[in-house]
Amino acid sequence: MPNANIAFLNDLLQSIGSRMRPGAVSKSSALSAEARLAEGCGALMRLGGEASQVVVAAQALAAFAELDDTAKLRFFQSLLDDYSADPAAIRAAYAAWESTQSEEDLEQLFKAVEPRRQALLRALNQAPGATLQLVRMRQDLLRLMREEPGLAPLDTDFSHLFASWFNRGFLVMRRIDWNSPAAILEKIVSYEAVHEIRDWDDLRRRLDPADRRCYAFFHPATGDEPLIFVEVALCQGIPDRIAPLLSERTQPGDEAPDTAVFYSISNCQPGLKGVSFGNFLIKQVVSDLSTELPPIRNFATLSPAPGFARWLSSVDEAEAQALAADLATGLWQTDSEECERLAPRVEAWAARYFTQAKTPSGAPADPVARFHLGNGASAHRVNWPADLAEGALKRAHGVMINYLYELDQIEARHEAFANDGTIACGPDMRRAVKAGTAPSA
Amino acid sequence: MPNANIAFLNDLLQSIGSRMRPGAVSKSSALSAEARLAEGCGALMRLGGEASQVVVAAQALAAFAELDDTAKLRFFQSLLDDYSADPAAIRAAYAAWESTQSEEDLEQLFKAVEPRRQALLRALNQAPGATLQLVRMRQDLLRLMREEPGLAPLDTDFSHLFASWFNRGFLVMRRIDWNSPAAILEKIVSYEAVHEIRDWDDLRRRLDPADRRCYAFFHPATGDEPLIFVEVALCQGIPDRIAPLLSERTQPGDEAPDTAVFYSISNCQPGLKGVSFGNFLIKQVVSDLSTELPPIRNFATLSPAPGFARWLSSVDEAEAQALAADLATGLWQTDSEECERLAPRVEAWAARYFTQAKTPSGAPADPVARFHLGNGASAHRVNWPADLAEGALKRAHGVMINYLYELDQIEARHEAFANDGTIACGPDMRRAVKAGTAPSA
Amino acid sequence: MPNANIAFLNDLLQSIGSRMRPGAVSKSSALSAEARLAEGCGALMRLGGEASQVVVAAQALAAFAELDDTAKLRFFQSLLDDYSADPAAIRAAYAAWESTQSEEDLEQLFKAVEPRRQALLRALNQAPGATLQLVRMRQDLLRLMREEPGLAPLDTDFSHLFASWFNRGFLVMRRIDWNSPAAILEKIVSYEAVHEIRDWDDLRRRLDPADRRCYAFFHPATGDEPLIFVEVALCQGIPDRIAPLLSERTQPGDEAPDTAVFYSISNCQPGLKGVSFGNFLIKQVVSDLSTELPPIRNFATLSPAPGFARWLSSVDEAEAQALAADLATGLWQTDSEECERLAPRVEAWAARYFTQAKTPSGAPADPVARFHLGNGASAHRVNWPADLAEGALKRAHGVMINYLYELDQIEARHEAFANDGTIACGPDMRRAVKAGTAPSA
Amino acid sequence: MPNANIAFLNDLLQSIGSRMRPGAVSKSSALSAEARLAEGCGALMRLGGEASQVVVAAQALAAFAELDDTAKLRFFQSLLDDYSADPAAIRAAYAAWESTQSEEDLEQLFKAVEPRRQALLRALNQAPGATLQLVRMRQDLLRLMREEPGLAPLDTDFSHLFASWFNRGFLVMRRIDWNSPAAILEKIVSYEAVHEIRDWDDLRRRLDPADRRCYAFFHPATGDEPLIFVEVALCQGIPDRIAPLLSERTQPGDEAPDTAVFYSISNCQPGLKGVSFGNFLIKQVVSDLSTELPPIRNFATLSPAPGFARWLSSVDEAEAQALAADLATGLWQTDSEECERLAPRVEAWAARYFTQAKTPSGAPADPVARFHLGNGASAHRVNWPADLAEGALKRAHGVMINYLYELDQIEARHEAFANDGTIACGPDMRRAVKAGTAPSA
Repeated sequence: MPNANIAFLNDLLQSIGSRMRPGAVSKSSALSAEARLAEGCGALMRLGGEASQVVVAAQALAAFAELDDTAKLRFFQSLLDDYSADPAAIRAAYAAWESTQSEEDLEQLFKAVEPRRQALLRALNQAPGATLQLVRMRQDLLRLMREEPGLAPLDTDFSHLFASWFNRGFLVMRRIDWNSPAAILEKIVSYEAVHEIRDWDDLRRRLDPADRRCYAFFHPATGDEPLIFVEVALCQGIPDRIAPLLSERTQPGDEAPDTAVFYSISNCQPGLKGVSFGNFLIKQVVSDLSTELPPIRNFATLSPAPGFARWLSSVDEAEAQALAADLATGLWQTDSEECERLAPRVEAWAARYFTQAKTPSGAPADPVARFHLGNGASAHRVNWPADLAEGALKRAHGVMINYLYELDQIEARHEAFANDGTIACGPDMRRAVKAGTAPSA
Repeated sequence: MPNANIAFLNDLLQSIGSRMRPGAVSKSSALSAEARLAEGCGALMRLGGEASQVVVAAQALAAFAELDDTAKLRFFQSLLDDYSADPAAIRAAYAAWESTQSEEDLEQLFKAVEPRRQALLRALNQAPGATLQLVRMRQDLLRLMREEPGLAPLDTDFSHLFASWFNRGFLVMRRIDWNSPAAILEKIVSYEAVHEIRDWDDLRRRLDPADRRCYAFFHPATGDEPLIFVEVALCQGIPDRIAPLLSERTQPGDEAPDTAVFYSISNCQPGLKGVSFGNFLIKQVVSDLSTELPPIRNFATLSPAPGFARWLSSVDEAEAQALAADLATGLWQTDSEECERLAPRVEAWAARYFTQAKTPSGAPADPVARFHLGNGASAHRVNWPADLAEGALKRAHGVMINYLYELDQIEARHEAFANDGTIACGPDMRRAVKAGTAPSA
Repeated sequence: MPNANIAFLNDLLQSIGSRMRPGAVSKSSALSAEARLAEGCGALMRLGGEASQVVVAAQALAAFAELDDTAKLRFFQSLLDDYSADPAAIRAAYAAWESTQSEEDLEQLFKAVEPRRQALLRALNQAPGATLQLVRMRQDLLRLMREEPGLAPLDTDFSHLFASWFNRGFLVMRRIDWNSPAAILEKIVSYEAVHEIRDWDDLRRRLDPADRRCYAFFHPATGDEPLIFVEVALCQGIPDRIAPLLSERTQPGDEAPDTAVFYSISNCQPGLKGVSFGNFLIKQVVSDLSTELPPIRNFATLSPAPGFARWLSSVDEAEAQALAADLATGLWQTDSEECERLAPRVEAWAARYFTQAKTPSGAPADPVARFHLGNGASAHRVNWPADLAEGALKRAHGVMINYLYELDQIEARHEAFANDGTIACGPDMRRAVKAGTAPSA
Repeated sequence: MPNANIAFLNDLLQSIGSRMRPGAVSKSSALSAEARLAEGCGALMRLGGEASQVVVAAQALAAFAELDDTAKLRFFQSLLDDYSADPAAIRAAYAAWESTQSEEDLEQLFKAVEPRRQALLRALNQAPGATLQLVRMRQDLLRLMREEPGLAPLDTDFSHLFASWFNRGFLVMRRIDWNSPAAILEKIVSYEAVHEIRDWDDLRRRLDPADRRCYAFFHPATGDEPLIFVEVALCQGIPDRIAPLLSERTQPGDEAPDTAVFYSISNCQPGLKGVSFGNFLIKQVVSDLSTELPPIRNFATLSPAPGFARWLSSVDEAEAQALAADLATGLWQTDSEECERLAPRVEAWAARYFTQAKTPSGAPADPVARFHLGNGASAHRVNWPADLAEGALKRAHGVMINYLYELDQIEARHEAFANDGTIACGPDMRRAVKAGTAPSA
C-alpha cells in the first residue's frame, strides 16, 4: 500500500507538474533546496486542509533530502525559532482561562501553547512515504543534537507526534521467514544489532529451520521497513550458551521443544528512539506462540550483560580486580579446569553486578536488565561462559543472563519493579545473588 | 491486517486470561460495565508504556460497548471532569515559562495544558480494533452532545487526535469493483448518501461496467471499513442529467469517453466529522485517472444543490414566489412546453442562489458549493431538470450543478476562494449568473 | 493469475497484431468465423511447438464463440471426420507391434491410434483462458449430442483430456465466505442446484454466520470460476428438517455444535460432466473441519431423495397407491395428527425405495444414494416431513435422507458397495428398512 | 496454493491416519518402502475414482522417495513390465476396429493400447505436491536410463503426460525481482546455467536495478518452483560483450534504453526435458516489454556458441588449426594488437561454424543456434572477444552471437527454418558469413 501511495505521488507530481502553470514550477526549481524547503513549509501552514498540501509536502521533503548537515542545522534551528507558539496568544489564552477555568478556555490555551511546528510536521506527513522520511529527519536531528543540545525542544515535538503515530494499535506484527521478500531480509541482515548476521547462509539458518522464528513490527505507512524484530529459537530447556542457537537447527532426534528463547531483539529505526515497541513485541510473540504451540511452556531470553566488564574493572576490591585479571588472560577459554575454577566467582560477581550496580536514579545499571525487568520478566540465571564472540568477551567477559517471561506474573512483577524497584529472581538467580553478596567469601 | 490484530486479541485474552491470577479476572467480571470501564481507564493512566495496556484497553472498550446512553453520558462527563488538565500544574508551568520564555518551559507548559483524556484516548487506541471503536465512541458523543452541548471540549480532544491519526499520509485509496469482498460492498450500499443503491443489481451497475468506477479511502487500522467513497462515470461530454448515470452503461456504439463525472461522494463515518477526506480523494482520483486514461480530459461533477428550494421559497420577491409555485405544480415534469418555458427562469434563479445566497460568515449558502469551490473547482453549468428523484425535487426542484476540476487551475482557484471568496465560473455559468442578477427582467 | 494471462493475450494480440504483416491479418478477418476456425485448427496442427500457436489458438477459439449451433455442429462433425487417426498408420503400427510385441512398438501404436483431435484440443488449450472455453465447448457438444448421438466419440476425447487436466492434484479448495469477491458470490447464487438462493440476504445467511461454511474447488487455469461447491451447517445433532438450515443461524443460547451437515452440493460446469469432484471435495472438507474444529464429531448430509415420488406411484401395490394418494392431498402439511399417522408408512416405503429400487445394472435407483454410498458413506435415517419446498414435495413427498461420513469406515464401505453392492445402514435406517420390507403389515 | 495443498495433506494424513483402523496402518509401516510402493500402486489401480486415492498416492510417493537407485531401477522396470497394455485386449480391440473402422471402436482400441502406467501416473498425481515429485521421478529415470536404455518407453509415457500437464495454457509468467521471496531467489541462484551467480550481491545486481529484469514460468501445481527463467538487460544498442551486463547498472548519465537483451535463459527442471518452454517465455517477455516500454525497439540476445571451439579444432584445414593455436595462447587477451589481428579470422570462422556445421540430420550443429533460429529469430552478429569467463573461453574461444527477435518476422522465419532450414541473417552476419565461406582468403 505505501508503494501504491508512492506510485501515486509520482503520477501526481508528473501529471500536476506537467499541467501546472509553468512559471510556478520553473521558478521554484531555480531556488536552492534550502529556499524551497523554507518556502514549502510556509505554504503548508498557509494552505490549511487543502489537497495541494500533499504535493507541497512532498516537494519540501525532497528539498530537505538534498541538504547537507549545515543546512539541516539551520532548518532545525528555524523550526525552533519560527515555528514556536506565539507568546502573546499564550498570554491572552492564559488570562482567559485563569478567569473562567472553563474547559473551553483550556481548549483555547492548549491550542495557543502547541508549538506551530507540530502542525507543520503533521502537514509534511501528508505526502506519500513521508512518515519514513520524518523518522529519518529525526534521526538527523538526534545526531546533530549531540553538538547542538539546544535543539532538544524540537525533538520533544517529534517524540510527541511519533508516540501518537506509532501507537501500538497501528502496528502490525509479521513473521519473517525464508519466504519473505529479499528486500525485507536484507534489512534484517543490516539491522541485526546483537549477534551479527554474516551472510545469507547465516540468515537462512536463523529463519528457515522449523525451530527458528523471527517476528517484526511494521507500520502501514512505512511499508516494508521493519521497526523492530526479535529472533526466537525453539529448544528443549532454557539454553546456557548462544553458539548452538546461531548454528544448526536442532537435530531431528531431539525431543520436542518446550521453550521459546528470545535470543536477539533489534530496534531498526534510530529515529524512533524512545517510542517503545520491544515490550509489545515480546508479549505478542509470547501470546501467539503459546496459542500456536501449546507444548511451549517456557518463554525465556538469552541476553547480553553489556556493562558487566566495565563495572567489574571499576569495583575497587582486590577480588574483583583479580577476577578481571584472570578473565583477561583468556586462559579459561581453552583450559577447562581454569574455567571450572573461575565459574563460581564469575557467577557471583555477575549476580552482584546485576543486583547492586545502579544508575544515579536507582535503576539497574545494566540497560538490558532494565528493559526486561521493566517488562515484568524475572531474572532466571547467570550463564558463563555463554558467548565467546569478541564483543561479548569485551563487554561482559562472555556472561549472558536468562530472563523469564511468565504470563501470569508479568503484571505483578512489572508493578513491583516500577513502584519499588523490586527485581524478581528465580531460584538459580537467588542462589547466585546470595553468593554474590559475599563474593569474596 | 486488522483482522489479524483482532484474532491476536482473542488469542491474547484467552491465553492471558486463562493463565492470569484467577482472582483478578473473576473479580472484575463481577463489576458492572460502567465500573469496569472506569477502573480500566484508571489502570491505563497508571500503567505507562506497559504492554498489558493492550489488554486493559480492550477490556475497557468492551465495557463501553455495553453501556446504554445514560451511562455513556456519565462516562463522557467523567472524562471531562476527571481527565482534564491540572490547574495547579498549569499555573506553575505558566509562571516558569513567563519568567524564561524558553522553549523548554514552553514544552512543559504544553504538557501541563494537554487534557489528560488525550493520553487516555491514545492508551485506549492500543487495543486491536480500537481505532474504529473510538470513531464510533465519538459518533455517540456527537449524538449525545445535541442534548449536552457542554461536552464540546471533549469532542475537541477526539477531533485533535483524529486529525493526526487520519492524516492523509496514512490513508490508502483502493478501487472498489465487482471483485471486492461482499463485506465491503454491503457497506457501500448502506453508506451511499446521495443516490440510493436499491439492491445488488443496482450496485453492480455502478461498479462492474467498464465505464464505471468507485474509489474509497481506507485506514490501515480500521481495515475493510471505508471512510469515504466516490462514484465515477466515464462518458462523452459533461452530463446534464443523473438518470443515465444510474442506469445502464454507455451503449457500445458510443464514442470513447472524454469525461470523468463524480456523481456521488459519501462520507461513511459520522464519528470522523470534520476530518476532511473529500478533497484528497477527488484529487487523487483525478490524478490517477488522468494517468491511466489519457483520453479523459474533463473531470467534472454532477452535484445536487440541496438548499435551492428552501432558499427560493424564502426570497421575498413576487417572481421567486411565482416560480416556486409553478415548480410545485409538477406540471413541467410531463408537459415539455411548460418545461421549456420554465427552464430559463429556473436556471437564472439557481445561478442567483448559487452566487448570492450566503452564510452569515459570507460563504456560499449551499454546502455542496462550499465543498467543491473550496477544493478549487469552478462552477460549470446549472442543469434543469436534472434529477427527478423525490428528495432532489423537494430540496432543489430537480436542479443539479456541474463543477469542473481543472488541474492547472485548482490551486489558484482555491486560494482566490479562500482569500477573497471569489467563485470561479465557466462561460455557461457566467451567462446564467448574468441572467440571474436580473432574473425578473 | 488467469486474469494476468488474459491481459497478456490482449497485449499480445494488440502488439503482435499491430506489427504483423498487415496482409495476413486483413485477409483472415475477411473470412467467416467458420472458415477462420477451420484455418486456425489446420495451422495449429502444422505449427508444432511454435509459440505463435498461442495466438492462433486464441483466434480459433474466438471464431468458435461466434458460431451458431448449426455451424458448431458442422465443426464438431469435422473434428470427428478430419481429425481422427489415420487407418493406414494404425495398420502399419499394429503389424509392427504384432511382430515384436515390444514396448517401443506399442508406443508407436499408441501414437498412431490417438485421434489427432486430442492433439488439436491440447494445442487450443495453449491460449490464455482457453481451458474454460474448452469446457464450454464440451457443454455445447453435450447439448448438441442429444440430437446427434454420433458425436459421442468426440466427447470421449474431451472426457479423456479433462480427466487429466482436472486431476485432483491440480484442484485448489477455497473457502467461500462473506469476504469473497462479489464476482464469485454471484456464481454461487446462480449455480446453486439443490436449495435455491433467492437473493443476497439469503446468500449472506448461508455464508456469513459463524456456524455456516461453504467450500469450492477451483482450477488455476479457470480462475475464479468455481467447479463445484458444498454448503455446510454446523449444528447440534444430525438435523431432520432443511428449513432451519436455510434460515437463521443457531441461536446464541444453543449448545456448541458437534455435527457438520452437508446440506447442498452443486456441480457448476456442465462441460465437466463425468469428471468427478464431489467425493474429493466432501472428504477434504471432512478432513479440514475435523482438524480445525475437534468438537465436530459427526459428518452427515441432509440429502434429497429425488426419485421417491415417481417410484412410489409406480409400485403396483394397493398400499403404495393409497399412501401416494394420502400424500397428494397435502392434508398432512397442516394436520399434525394426519402427519403422525402417515409418518411410519412414509418412512417404511422410503426405506424400501432406498434399498429395493434399482437401476437395470443393479445399483440403487436414487442418484443421490448412488453418489454418497459410492463415496463410502452409510445411510443414517429417513426424515419426514423434512423439505416442504415445492420441488421436494413433487419429487420426494418431502422426504430427505441423512448419510453419514465416518472417516474410519469410508474405505471399507466404499469397497463393499463397489464390489458387492452392500448398502451400509445405521440402526435407525435398519429399523426403517425392516419395517419397509413388510410395509403393509 | 500448493502449500495449502501440502498442509492439507499433512492434516489429512494426521486426521485420517489417527482415526483409521490401527491394524492397517501399523501393518503397512512394517513393510519396506519398496513393498509399500508396489502395494500403493496396486491399490491406486483398484480404487478407481475413489477419494482415498489421494492418501494412497501420497504414501506411494513417500515410499518412492526412500528408495535407493537399485530399488528405483527395479520399480521403473516393474512399471514397464507390469503396467503395460494387455496384448489380448489390444488384439480384440484391433479386430473389432478392423471390421467396422468406426470411431467407437477406434476409441476402444485407444483405451486398449494406452499403457496402464499412464493411468497409474495420473493417479499418483492426485496427491498434494505430487506433480513436482513426478517431475523429480522422471529426472531419476533419465539419469538411470543412461545405463538402462531399455526404460525409454517408460520415459515416453512421462513425456506424453507432462506435455499435457505443462501445457502453455497452464503456465504462469511472473517477474522475479528483489521483492521476490528468498526461497525463490535461492533457486534462481542455483539454477542459473549460463552465467554463474556467485552470491546474493551478484544476484541483486541482476534483479534490482531499474534496467534489469528477470521473468520465470511457474506451474500452479508446482508452486514456487521455477520451470525456466530468462534474465534481461535494458540498454542502448545491441551489446557485444557480456561483462557490462553482469556488472553494474547503466550509468545514470546514459541515454534511455532502446534494446532488451536476453543474456541468459536457464531451464530449471531436468525432469521436464523435451517439454518446451523457452520459446513461449521469450515471446511473452517480448510482448510484455513492448507493451510496457514502447521505447524498447530491439529484442536481442547475447548468446554463447558452445560448440565453436571443438568444431574449430576438428576442421582439417591448416588455417583452422593455426587459428585454434593462436587462440589457445591467450596472448590476445592482453595484447590488443594481437586481438585486432585475430578478430577478422575469428569472426569469419565463427560465421562458417554457424552456417556450415551441421548435425547428421542437417540442422545447425550449435544447440543455441537451433533454439533461437527455431524460434524464428535471425542471426545478427558475431562478437569477439565477448565472454572471457573460463568456460566460455574453453567452449567458444570467447565468441558470442546476437540473435534478433523481430515480431513481424518471427512466424515467417520460423516456417522458413522449419521447412527449408533457411537461416535468417542480418547484414553484419551476412558479411561475416561471406568472409567465412573463404576464410583462408
